[in-house]
Amino acid sequence: MTGGERIPILKMGQFLLLTIQVDMHDQLALSLQDDLTDRIVKERARGVLIDISALEIVDSFIGRMLANIAGMARVLDAETVVVGMRPAVAITLVELGLSLPDVRTALNVERGMELLTRAGVSGGARGNGSRPF
Amino acid sequence: MTGGERIPILKMGQFLLLTIQVDMHDQLALSLQDDLTDRIVKERARGVLIDISALEIVDSFIGRMLANIAGMARVLDAETVVVGMRPAVAITLVELGLSLPDVRTALNVERGMELLTRAGVSGGARGNGSRPF
Repeated sequence: MTGGERIPILKMGQFLLLTIQVDMHDQLALSLQDDLTDRIVKERARGVLIDISALEIVDSFIGRMLANIAGMARVLDAETVVVGMRPAVAITLVELGLSLPDVRTALNVERGMELLTRAGVSGGARGNGSRPF
Repeated sequence: MTGGERIPILKMGQFLLLTIQVDMHDQLALSLQDDLTDRIVKERARGVLIDISALEIVDSFIGRMLANIAGMARVLDAETVVVGMRPAVAITLVELGLSLPDVRTALNVERGMELLTRAGVSGGARGNGSRPF
């Protein structure tokens, strides 16, 4: 019924939003990277919001995937914010020593949007500093 | 890895947003109805956006679920808009005689939000007319 297992990416103003609901595996992570980088370029998006409120576990695979996505978005001049992390996930992440150093987080989508908007309004120093022109 | 199969519901201002990515079945549809009606009341939401861009097929079960959700939201004074329908789904729906008469649709989330905002700005006649105060 679902579209060959692809995670839908929604455009909200200058930002892209996706929610992770299904078990991630290599192939799905790769298609997500492809789809998301395509959409960032196509929509000239300045930010990506990834909701993980459905995830009960964030392991090193998911952590690496989030960091990869954030890295790819960054070189395309878009900031990534991971939102909706459950309290239990935060506890486990820190206990496992996986504190997602390369990924920004916010409590929920609204706070994530505020964060991205503020980052944009303040001149976007870190994003623009590495712009390729 | 996912949270006992529940569809995450995101709050965006006065609206709630959810994307349907997984195969729907009776139990999941029931939990979605429970979760969504709870959230409408808790967040005092005025609108619900349901993205179905991941769905390759909308059959009578999904159609009825969407109509049910829209009906429940309506008695809680929130409008529902289904967004992101694929062209092939639109063709099949009409060919099958399932034109979702009780559900509003919009091309994408942004247009859906505009629709809800306009409906609210114009006085919200149909929503407010039946408000319980």
